[in-house]
Amino acid sequence: MMKTLKEKELEPFFNPKSVCVAGASKSGWKLGNVVISNMLRFGYGGKIFPLHPDGGELMGFRAYPSSLEIDENVDLAIAVIPRDTVPSFVKECGEAGIRNIVVCAAGFSDCGAVGAKLESEILRSARKYGIRILGPNSVGTINTHGKFATSLLTLDVLEKGNVSIAAQTGLFQAGYERMFASLENPGISKVISLGNKADIDEIDALKYFENDSTTHVIGIYTEGVKDGRHFINVAKRISRRKPLVVLKGGRSSAGASSAFGHTGSLSGPQEIFSGALKQVSIIPANSINELIWGIKALSLCPPARGQGVGVVSITGAGCVLSADCLTEAGLCIPELSLKTLERIERITPSYFKVSNPADIWAAVETGGIGEAFRIFLDAFASQDNIDILIAITTLVPESTFEAEEVFGELKSSCQNKPLIATVLGAKPEEYWQWSKPLERIGIPVYDSIEGAVYAAKSLSLAGNPIREKRESPAYVKTEG
Amino acid sequence: MMKTLKEKELEPFFNPKSVCVAGASKSGWKLGNVVISNMLRFGYGGKIFPLHPDGGELMGFRAYPSSLEIDENVDLAIAVIPRDTVPSFVKECGEAGIRNIVVCAAGFSDCGAVGAKLESEILRSARKYGIRILGPNSVGTINTHGKFATSLLTLDVLEKGNVSIAAQTGLFQAGYERMFASLENPGISKVISLGNKADIDEIDALKYFENDSTTHVIGIYTEGVKDGRHFINVAKRISRRKPLVVLKGGRSSAGASSAFGHTGSLSGPQEIFSGALKQVSIIPANSINELIWGIKALSLCPPARGQGVGVVSITGAGCVLSADCLTEAGLCIPELSLKTLERIERITPSYFKVSNPADIWAAVETGGIGEAFRIFLDAFASQDNIDILIAITTLVPESTFEAEEVFGELKSSCQNKPLIATVLGAKPEEYWQWSKPLERIGIPVYDSIEGAVYAAKSLSLAGNPIREKRESPAYVKTEG
Repeated sequence: MMKTLKEKELEPFFNPKSVCVAGASKSGWKLGNVVISNMLRFGYGGKIFPLHPDGGELMGFRAYPSSLEIDENVDLAIAVIPRDTVPSFVKECGEAGIRNIVVCAAGFSDCGAVGAKLESEILRSARKYGIRILGPNSVGTINTHGKFATSLLTLDVLEKGNVSIAAQTGLFQAGYERMFASLENPGISKVISLGNKADIDEIDALKYFENDSTTHVIGIYTEGVKDGRHFINVAKRISRRKPLVVLKGGRSSAGASSAFGHTGSLSGPQEIFSGALKQVSIIPANSINELIWGIKALSLCPPARGQGVGVVSITGAGCVLSADCLTEAGLCIPELSLKTLERIERITPSYFKVSNPADIWAAVETGGIGEAFRIFLDAFASQDNIDILIAITTLVPESTFEAEEVFGELKSSCQNKPLIATVLGAKPEEYWQWSKPLERIGIPVYDSIEGAVYAAKSLSLAGNPIREKRESPAYVKTEG
Repeated sequence: MMKTLKEKELEPFFNPKSVCVAGASKSGWKLGNVVISNMLRFGYGGKIFPLHPDGGELMGFRAYPSSLEIDENVDLAIAVIPRDTVPSFVKECGEAGIRNIVVCAAGFSDCGAVGAKLESEILRSARKYGIRILGPNSVGTINTHGKFATSLLTLDVLEKGNVSIAAQTGLFQAGYERMFASLENPGISKVISLGNKADIDEIDALKYFENDSTTHVIGIYTEGVKDGRHFINVAKRISRRKPLVVLKGGRSSAGASSAFGHTGSLSGPQEIFSGALKQVSIIPANSINELIWGIKALSLCPPARGQGVGVVSITGAGCVLSADCLTEAGLCIPELSLKTLERIERITPSYFKVSNPADIWAAVETGGIGEAFRIFLDAFASQDNIDILIAITTLVPESTFEAEEVFGELKSSCQNKPLIATVLGAKPEEYWQWSKPLERIGIPVYDSIEGAVYAAKSLSLAGNPIREKRESPAYVKTEG
């Protein structure tokens, strides 16, 4: 089955000028009402046509008994209706000239033979009318730049960001969306929930994100791609310009079987998938946390020039555990050069041996925490084979320093070496107070060593295509 | 070097009747003042004798120029003084009849030959006078039941709990302590910071915790034990009664080298250590997060009877990813019995196939989220080979249900099967509002699948000694 997707084919799913919504109630509060309320909360400026058998008014809008009765163009229909009514709804949309539909109901190819048959039926109608289907089993899209959101779950308004996510789950249009809104990061451009991927899939989403000017970083959660070779080719092309973090669910046979029940996905052997990922510059994630850690770092920092990491820590355990974790992640921990050591010497007692990772306690006694971080990080950043900096602290009154000033100065003076901050232990509210201002100036903050090291790994992997380009004249020639 | 530690030898470090503190200021605010302020904040009821060259008054207490001038018994001295003044301070304490000292300064065996020599010097004096040394490079102890805390870092008051931690880091008496205080869990009984372990080490701490009635669960962070065989033997004995989670820093060669600089520890080959852990029922942690996840679950739940895990999730991705993660953790995901399926049947549409992990969306449409969780979890709990339950949700208004009631009822009706709750995505403040009441009734809550699965693994491993005991008459005989 060949699909030819024009560059902006998904545009109506993210930037519709007008939408109709099936499944809202006039008296109660159904999921269709949630969809409309999300659009209103996000400040959607297009036209909204609720569908309701009785017509009349719904949430302040004129309601139509059928899409056929709407006498204006409808870019996108959102079907928040029971499974068995979807096939006739798709036909009706086809007759009404609507060419894009989000199908929210589940119970299709994720649910046995009857469901699979219904999904085929929908797809047949869609092909006949030239309709693109998102789902079934999708909660739709978010577009912060277009002030649009269709989720079935109540969202908080997100600030505009540069990360776009395509996922075979609605979680990024549910609790995680609310988390991102509250924490401000990762900053989101677009989210698309792919559901069963009867029609629109990761490849379509990737191609759309490729040409979307507000998407700089891409996150994918997939339970198995249908055309692996095509996916890898597209991902390879895109990852040269936009870093791509991919979480694959269904790695185990139990997970794969569960994926079949969730979205009807055939996961395929994990080895083949992860092997293929390694060949291209895709950044593999093993958990939702890793996916989020990665896209946050990539959205705030430039890709790293290499894989050398310098760690400056207020706690010795932070040094030991980060060395373990960096080693396990395959990153490098360069030894300090004489020049670097000389720069640090003046604030460390003579008996104290500095290495990488560096415990700064002795320097803290001499010059204070802020000064110790400043001098160590400056010295580390000036060493050529250190490409990424990790600063580790814990939040107690005694560890307070002007982090925004100290880290901010380093960030400005050394723009091509990402700085990652890590907090080992804090009261939650103090953590957010500390981390938010830093993230606003482009320093990602993590509450674990694993988070910081995964961030470093992501930034290092994201730098691969740049390094390849720099190092290979042949590659440049091909591009020219 | 043989050490014979009497059962309650560490008692003065946790429950001193009187303490003297060296290193507090009368006019300014030094770390010695922090130590005294922590004691006061915790409600310490014993006597406090600050030391100060000028005598007079300090923070409302009479200050003494020297410990020799205190004419009352002093159970514990806390030395918050520069490295080079420690040896003479230890001698002075010896002459004054003080037999227990916390040495806070670093720069000893963690810091080259001169430091190592100083440490030997201290140790020699200590042996001469029969003094026990905690440190050097220690921030001291916490004892919530005894209302005592010596940390150099400002602590928040902790409620009384049942977990005790021995660590070669002060982090659990710094930011993590404040985190535990804010989140209420894991509930802490005692913490001891071991530092360089010149004298008191993990084995001493373990023996003390073994006989401490308020310690039910033990967490260890070590950068390498000096007498591995002794440690394993003691750990083996204790882990039969009190679950023991161990995080070993310095697993990699870079980490081991960093550990030597942090606490002067020789890590030893990781394979030998982790191999030995497997033989006894120690629960290995690979990160601070795993250590915290584990001790929280163990402090709230009974050990599990086996390794069968049932997962009930509001999100399909939660099913897929938990199946992957459980498989990778070596836990079992039992298939559902016909009896279990029959119990679930009545709230699931006929076309919907239920398996383990179970996605409850279809049942939610029929009976509401609370009812779906209730029926699924009840049915799963009644299946014999399911030993642990994991419930997964996301926090949006549409996913709200009476979690405390539904989960609480299950917990009461099925006390030998731990229930673990997991939230995939939430606004942080909503997460704490949701999780705290559940943890108060003994249901540990995690914000990641990795956290929940590690908790399940910990509970399953903690059940091993019980199962062995049940299954092996020989073992029982030996004990009798």
